[in-house]
Amino acid sequence: MEKEITIYDIAKDLGVSPTTVSRALNNHPAVKEKTKMRIFEAALKMGYQSNVFAANLRSKKTHNIGVIVPRLNSSFQSSVIAGMEKVATDAGFNLIISQSLESYDKEIANVHTMFNSRVDGLLVSLAANTEKIDHFKPFMKKGTPVLFFDRIAECEDCTGVTIDNIQAAYKATNHLIEQGCKKIVHVLGNIKINVYADRLKGYKYALLDKGLAFEDALVIYSDLNEEAGEAIVKKIMALKPLPDGLFVSNDACAASCIRHLKLEGIKIPEDIAVVGFNNDVISRLIEPNITTVNYPGFEMGEVAMKNLINHLEGQTIGILTNTNKITLRSELIIRDSSKRKKEQ
Amino acid sequence: MEKEITIYDIAKDLGVSPTTVSRALNNHPAVKEKTKMRIFEAALKMGYQSNVFAANLRSKKTHNIGVIVPRLNSSFQSSVIAGMEKVATDAGFNLIISQSLESYDKEIANVHTMFNSRVDGLLVSLAANTEKIDHFKPFMKKGTPVLFFDRIAECEDCTGVTIDNIQAAYKATNHLIEQGCKKIVHVLGNIKINVYADRLKGYKYALLDKGLAFEDALVIYSDLNEEAGEAIVKKIMALKPLPDGLFVSNDACAASCIRHLKLEGIKIPEDIAVVGFNNDVISRLIEPNITTVNYPGFEMGEVAMKNLINHLEGQTIGILTNTNKITLRSELIIRDSSKRKKEQ
Repeated sequence: MEKEITIYDIAKDLGVSPTTVSRALNNHPAVKEKTKMRIFEAALKMGYQSNVFAANLRSKKTHNIGVIVPRLNSSFQSSVIAGMEKVATDAGFNLIISQSLESYDKEIANVHTMFNSRVDGLLVSLAANTEKIDHFKPFMKKGTPVLFFDRIAECEDCTGVTIDNIQAAYKATNHLIEQGCKKIVHVLGNIKINVYADRLKGYKYALLDKGLAFEDALVIYSDLNEEAGEAIVKKIMALKPLPDGLFVSNDACAASCIRHLKLEGIKIPEDIAVVGFNNDVISRLIEPNITTVNYPGFEMGEVAMKNLINHLEGQTIGILTNTNKITLRSELIIRDSSKRKKEQ
Repeated sequence: MEKEITIYDIAKDLGVSPTTVSRALNNHPAVKEKTKMRIFEAALKMGYQSNVFAANLRSKKTHNIGVIVPRLNSSFQSSVIAGMEKVATDAGFNLIISQSLESYDKEIANVHTMFNSRVDGLLVSLAANTEKIDHFKPFMKKGTPVLFFDRIAECEDCTGVTIDNIQAAYKATNHLIEQGCKKIVHVLGNIKINVYADRLKGYKYALLDKGLAFEDALVIYSDLNEEAGEAIVKKIMALKPLPDGLFVSNDACAASCIRHLKLEGIKIPEDIAVVGFNNDVISRLIEPNITTVNYPGFEMGEVAMKNLINHLEGQTIGILTNTNKITLRSELIIRDSSKRKKEQ
């Protein structure tokens, strides 16, 4: 094996001080970006490798942050992770990522792996059938911060980053009522997940406030994927009289519903006005464009990661210990799929 | 601090042998799934944490695999990562993920971080403006395997996992010609990226084989995002006579083009037949459904990770050293956006 390259070799080669090299390699803000890049390139070229094992053993820190999501191939979750990665990389942390595939058992196994990898902190969006969160207790016992995002746990001593799903669904439903809808179908996912449970509440509250009756028959449970539209539309077409509003908890599924409603000869928004959720690309490409709730995935990732890192670096001591929930802004974006009245 | 829990404590608690506990915690195939789960749960409940630092220092292995992609919030890349995660987790490896944001400089910084984190192997899809791959040399020098996927490097001593982009584009263009198209526009991304350079070749070869002239004016460069359709359609509408075929290197952008062509009163596929690329969800939701190339992201992730892990575990010694390219199957899926002839 060749002799290991040290920071002194790099400093000598570039004619800078070893301190500058050390700072650059640790991504210290005092070193200019340009100098950092020169040092990075020289370090790579010369084959320098910092001794992370020894350093970790000393500091008991890995600079790794674990992320567990239900599914990696979800357009919402991949935006969240992109936001997290940006913040983590800038702060000198790595992201270790795994997916629970919506399974409680796999989530337990993932948490176990993360714990053994000694991640400095954990960011989690829960699996659909996770009801207890005892599997996170070893982290809490050890003082390693766990932060939930989007699909959060209802518990006294943990922190969650989320949007106000009740309010968002309230606004969506209320908008349909203002467009003249009197019989509104709501399509949602597994209500064990806080996200869907809250949206159902928002839908109910909006009906209540406008004096419309809530009917169980108008609530359709679905796995909300792109194929689900056909089955949902079949159920809608069986309702007599036909509903005049449709609020779907996800844009891909809303697009699929619109497609199958059109195949049945239903005009959107004249016969049925439609609202989706997420502000996915698809909501802007389908005809008509879908009214939707802008759900800021990238920003959610940034906020969750910033809070975790601030906590780890002691910049905001206690913020996670004392904060139960961080709520991000969301907004209703009105487009053609629900615009029945000319004047908005 | 409390006394550390050992595998002997867990073994005693569950009435199994310490060997079984050790094997289960290392995800050894000889232990039944059910027993593994029981041991995992007990380990978590008791707060057991394996001493990875010490173990890593001994074995010089981290069981971490680095992944660098251009963008995490891409539907193709998130499918690839989902496939990688599945294989890695099953084999007891963690995924450390970062994104280059299409920047060569950020890619160098990412590679530097991965090298210092002493990942056991690296999987990379290159940034748009990466031309040299010298920054990977320290890995190669050290014998740490680097495997490229999708956007691969042209080099003698590295391995890439990809589809045959020339052939896929050839089939797509040929299909349009068989539907009667005589003037076909091709929309693609930065041709510094092998993926687009190869598709341009496939498009040219198909024209050549059918005796159609290649015209520079019919090749439109774009960043292929969902907003790009408007500008592309403006260019198409300026061509006299109007083209009768359109082959777009990405489904979201093809959908955006279809939307803007329809706004111009163009009928799809009667006036212009359209083919996309990727088989994204959107290709199945837009009207008409888009003919596209099925680009198996999830499978690409699985194959890349399996090859890397087999190499690491010495099961297929030399496979990466001797393999230059692993080509996955892709297929043209014909849908309504290009079907001009009744009989297929």
